[in-house]
Amino acid sequence: MLTRIDHIGIACRNLDETVKFYEETYGFTVFHSEVNEEQGVREAMLKINETSDGGASYLQLLEPIREDSTVAKWLEKNGEGVHHIAFGTADVDGDADAIRGKGVRVLYDEPRRGSMGSRITFLHPKDCHGVLTELVTSAPADAEH
Amino acid sequence: MLTRIDHIGIACRNLDETVKFYEETYGFTVFHSEVNEEQGVREAMLKINETSDGGASYLQLLEPIREDSTVAKWLEKNGEGVHHIAFGTADVDGDADAIRGKGVRVLYDEPRRGSMGSRITFLHPKDCHGVLTELVTSAPADAEH
Repeated sequence: MLTRIDHIGIACRNLDETVKFYEETYGFTVFHSEVNEEQGVREAMLKINETSDGGASYLQLLEPIREDSTVAKWLEKNGEGVHHIAFGTADVDGDADAIRGKGVRVLYDEPRRGSMGSRITFLHPKDCHGVLTELVTSAPADAEH
Repeated sequence: MLTRIDHIGIACRNLDETVKFYEETYGFTVFHSEVNEEQGVREAMLKINETSDGGASYLQLLEPIREDSTVAKWLEKNGEGVHHIAFGTADVDGDADAIRGKGVRVLYDEPRRGSMGSRITFLHPKDCHGVLTELVTSAPADAEH
């Protein structure tokens, strides 16, 4: 069951400049930064609020590190902006299977590694009214971030 | 101060079909529906979670009711997808003034009426790394919705 807006993924050309914009304009702060080689991005997670399911909602700022990454291709086509939205669940595997069973294409056969040790998968935007949609199960609270 | 992700605004061509998708795929439910004549949209708010500032996070599904509405024009250019993101604040007037003072264009001179009796304004996406960004102060809890 999807129990929160986990994050909004925003594609940008220059992560440092975009982080600076969010810090200086709104006072948000970087909770976590990492490079995800598999996704071909470096990213910053800005924590905005905690959520009633015990999780939190973040902005995820994404800068491509390779020209062949999906985010680089997306930026070339669309320019900077909202790249995807993500819902949090305690059971990404079960939810992905259930959603696949409803005829929505799930992009990975098995969930992969996402931000902060989470497990993630994506739903095809053409099956979701144009919205690239991610499902996330956070790492246990004692995992590194 | 912006204290939550208030909602993600998603533009769609057919509100009923899109609501049905979110209900059947994820089990989300419609918390509120309304027509906003000024914005030229009819909309459904799906409540996803409550937030640590005492508010909540929603998906806002938007269908244009006029061809000259900004959402209709946006759909024509972009197709269905994420139209804007919104941050919640207790003081949309003060925050809009502060953000304007930092050189970000605020689209309204004074906040206008948003969903569920809220007061809203928008920041120019070109000043926000491509993200049309809304600021929202909810109506008092005893207001109608």
